[in-house]
Amino acid sequence: MSFQHVAIIGLGLIGGSIGLAVREHLPGVTTTGYDLDPQVRARARERMLADAVCDDPAAAVAGADLVILCVPVGAMAAAADAIAPGLPPGAVISDVGSLKEAIGRTLAERLPNHAIIPAHPVAGTEHSGPDAGFATLFHQRWCIVTPPAGADPAQVAALVAFWESLGAMVETMDAEHHDRVLAVTSHIPHLIAYTIVGTASELESVTRSEVIKYSAGGFRDFTRIAASDPTMWRDVFLHNREAVLDMLDRFLTDLALMREAIRASDGETMFDVFSRTRAIRRSIVALGQDDPRPDFGRQPPPG
Amino acid sequence: MSFQHVAIIGLGLIGGSIGLAVREHLPGVTTTGYDLDPQVRARARERMLADAVCDDPAAAVAGADLVILCVPVGAMAAAADAIAPGLPPGAVISDVGSLKEAIGRTLAERLPNHAIIPAHPVAGTEHSGPDAGFATLFHQRWCIVTPPAGADPAQVAALVAFWESLGAMVETMDAEHHDRVLAVTSHIPHLIAYTIVGTASELESVTRSEVIKYSAGGFRDFTRIAASDPTMWRDVFLHNREAVLDMLDRFLTDLALMREAIRASDGETMFDVFSRTRAIRRSIVALGQDDPRPDFGRQPPPG
Repeated sequence: MSFQHVAIIGLGLIGGSIGLAVREHLPGVTTTGYDLDPQVRARARERMLADAVCDDPAAAVAGADLVILCVPVGAMAAAADAIAPGLPPGAVISDVGSLKEAIGRTLAERLPNHAIIPAHPVAGTEHSGPDAGFATLFHQRWCIVTPPAGADPAQVAALVAFWESLGAMVETMDAEHHDRVLAVTSHIPHLIAYTIVGTASELESVTRSEVIKYSAGGFRDFTRIAASDPTMWRDVFLHNREAVLDMLDRFLTDLALMREAIRASDGETMFDVFSRTRAIRRSIVALGQDDPRPDFGRQPPPG
Repeated sequence: MSFQHVAIIGLGLIGGSIGLAVREHLPGVTTTGYDLDPQVRARARERMLADAVCDDPAAAVAGADLVILCVPVGAMAAAADAIAPGLPPGAVISDVGSLKEAIGRTLAERLPNHAIIPAHPVAGTEHSGPDAGFATLFHQRWCIVTPPAGADPAQVAALVAFWESLGAMVETMDAEHHDRVLAVTSHIPHLIAYTIVGTASELESVTRSEVIKYSAGGFRDFTRIAASDPTMWRDVFLHNREAVLDMLDRFLTDLALMREAIRASDGETMFDVFSRTRAIRRSIVALGQDDPRPDFGRQPPPG
């Protein structure tokens, strides 16, 4: 089996990119879309993020064999309720959220008679909204599919094939493990970035204008992540609390060790930690998961 | 006055970039260079990082009217001692280190009869060594000059003009304030990045290979900074201890508040912090201090 009609609920960065990527990579497949915000729907029509953008969520899913919910975690239950009246009985329900256990549970509660196969494309930028999406967002990025126990293997295979068609590499794992992995590779980095950017902007001894001017020393890298969508990230931390707190506490333990090394002028410990971390960067670049050019390929302005 | 002969001691990323930038922007100015490592000297000759690369530090500074020490903070005293025998009496001594109070003190102790005007170009990439430099590294970046009390205004003006010639914007401030500003915008971000990359690579429940694969969720941004030169950064933390510990403790206080917000499911506090930090990013981009393209302009691999 393969999907012929994909309904996209939520037309921001990820939803919009799915629509554009389907048109580019799966020209025979129909897309319909819906967003709660009328202004987003209007912009989505202008950018043609889906073949048809509907004003009614139930109408958007009518006839679909795959429905992808691309809304913040906290809006998932309401989105499921809104599409329920129009949902074809055989449609597969999936999503793109950054955490999988809570979403899988919510969708199973709200749509108990439907096949639910959560997924998470590990891709994005710091921009959000209907103008942010682009067709190549998923190229060479991983998409993690977390089929619940008892999922239909043919439906899982069709969802895997769908994401591979958009250029992604797919891995399956259970939802709980996904949430631990992403706590490390995504949630904690965002929490730290948001926090340090907040700290730096509220010092008395260093002005905000100085922080901005001299940000090229490293700080600016953190501000990109800290410009991500606040609603989406609030919901992530509300719904992946246990794994995030566990990883945060490990980080805090390590940071306390570094603090003590600085306090005690223990250069050996610092050098040891600072040397080991280089290897990780090399592996990420070697696996095609980051731009190999210095400074992410940033262009200095013409001077 | 303007400098006619610049001696560059240390031919890594910054020293090499100065040599290349002088050739591009100040074609009448002579450059000589030296590096402690014979392999770096050989590579510097091949890349012509300076007009002449000398095998003896004292010979490298003979005839220079500006000497720029581009070595890690911990190597500063030895580098000053090594050039002392060849130093012309009127030469201005400067450097490019990431902290200014300790360096100014060290250079004044070692070269008590010379004019010392420390400087810090806030520019760099995660790469180091004689292959890493390029002529445009300082374009549109800030260079902070920290003249000691009683510095000759004409010499300070000449050093400012030198950096402006290489494309930099120059600000002067006192060394102590510099060290506080850079603790926020550079030192703490590096410490945090090194630490979280270390934490992530030593978990039991999530493999290193998973951390690498799913790094596009945010983690990979931290690995760039954590790939910076370990010797340089060890020396920064050994010599800017007080300002770093002060800023680190403020960050830890803020992180404890976020931890408590997560524990208590306090979405309002999270949303408030996550919303405010977006403005900082916008200001950095508006001031030309970062690439405005999504994701730093990273190119996804062809898919």
